Amino acid sequence: MTPVLSELEPGTVWLVGAGPGDPGLLTLHAYQALQQAEVVVYDALIAQPILDLVNPAAVLEFAGKRAGNHACTQAEIAERLIALAQQGKRVVRLKGGDPFVFGRGGEEALALVAAGISFRVVPGITSGLAALAAAGIPATTRATNSAITFATGHFADNGIHDEKLRGLAKSGHPLVLYMAVKSLGAVANVLIEGGLAPDTPVAIISNATTARQKIVDTRLDSAHSDAIAANVQAPAIIAIGDIVRLRPMLAEGIGLLDTNEDSVANPALVQA
Amino acid sequence: MTPVLSELEPGTVWLVGAGPGDPGLLTLHAYQALQQAEVVVYDALIAQPILDLVNPAAVLEFAGKRAGNHACTQAEIAERLIALAQQGKRVVRLKGGDPFVFGRGGEEALALVAAGISFRVVPGITSGLAALAAAGIPATTRATNSAITFATGHFADNGIHDEKLRGLAKSGHPLVLYMAVKSLGAVANVLIEGGLAPDTPVAIISNATTARQKIVDTRLDSAHSDAIAANVQAPAIIAIGDIVRLRPMLAEGIGLLDTNEDSVANPALVQA
Repeated sequence: MTPVLSELEPGTVWLVGAGPGDPGLLTLHAYQALQQAEVVVYDALIAQPILDLVNPAAVLEFAGKRAGNHACTQAEIAERLIALAQQGKRVVRLKGGDPFVFGRGGEEALALVAAGISFRVVPGITSGLAALAAAGIPATTRATNSAITFATGHFADNGIHDEKLRGLAKSGHPLVLYMAVKSLGAVANVLIEGGLAPDTPVAIISNATTARQKIVDTRLDSAHSDAIAANVQAPAIIAIGDIVRLRPMLAEGIGLLDTNEDSVANPALVQA
Repeated sequence: MTPVLSELEPGTVWLVGAGPGDPGLLTLHAYQALQQAEVVVYDALIAQPILDLVNPAAVLEFAGKRAGNHACTQAEIAERLIALAQQGKRVVRLKGGDPFVFGRGGEEALALVAAGISFRVVPGITSGLAALAAAGIPATTRATNSAITFATGHFADNGIHDEKLRGLAKSGHPLVLYMAVKSLGAVANVLIEGGLAPDTPVAIISNATTARQKIVDTRLDSAHSDAIAANVQAPAIIAIGDIVRLRPMLAEGIGLLDTNEDSVANPALVQA
């Protein structure tokens, strides 16, 4: 049996979460939207196997950053979505992970509202949770934590002061950092100043759920140097806290956590 | 084009996230697993439209709590999963939301590892993020927050002391509470003691993304009484913080946030 899903109507925009990279982690809504779209405006982080699923008759428009090229500004992207909807197109705005989690989907939605465009938000598997699952790290267990915080690593850049970051350290529950590869050294130092033990376990999961997935097991005080030594590239998720200690146990004996190229050549195989 | 997904093998267990309730928010992996399963062991929170998608030849086993009946213990559930896998069955353990987020999936995974059973974790759309999207509340925007915390409302019950909850208040970023309907009065009081303003905006989203979705807009100091007045029933997600202020803006003019029974009779319609 297949579920009956609502249609992507002409003149509307769906802000669709593409999930972390594995096409199998698209939702049914997202998959259907890629079939029904006439235009798909996508970001740099969308994996090629997902773009391969878009209806061949649809126009693919790139809106992200690429080396050497200017990225579209948020205002330009919003203008483009509005123009396409006003032309009566069925528009998918395809964003990595979940559109409302560090994805600026909220800003795009507000721009669409202001222009009177009908839209819908299709949640996606957020990369933080997908990376944890792929690495064998439960986000919560009763024995370890009753809360978990997702934070962006852009703290240092966007005027958020260190005090906020020290507050996260004091919370005592695990942290999942997005976009923190560049700022990892500074962030780790402030977290240690804030009270986290230097040997707090850390897992750095780059390109989670794709064929290029790589996991670096480290601790807070050496996370930055270990990331450099391992040549970790964005996008990466950084998990910090006691939950990371469960990873070796969940990896043990199941073999599914093997992350060499062969074992993850089928993206579906990277599930924990 | 359809993606090639890995198969649910005999003698293995997939811990599958069913998402928040809308069948359209199942992942492709989850949907395929429901087709390939020989046994599906499911929780009380799984929506009927999702159970309707299970292969008719599969056995559905209920493992949750129902009024007047004892729920299976975690140990009993783990034993059952292990026994089914040892019989060579293709087993899906279907859990609401994401199996690793307040779902005890980590504990089940550890039990499977200990028994030498191959398993895989298929992340699901966690109810907290789905409820936010359905209510028109971005989890993050650059203007409001660089972090967001998910916490269980079982604080009061499970030995977590109020100090931890006050720490969440002091963090200054939005909170998304799971399973907090019963403890809402106590939790709100401690958050206010911890420094959150009594007029901090709150949205209580029950049965998110299902035909029974209901949203109560309130503030921290009256959240408990408003929840009682509106007869809010579990499962519900409680969003607390500045991000909730964006909800009226995103609701304005788009019509898709109308949550009366008719408009959400098709579950897909509850997106944003």
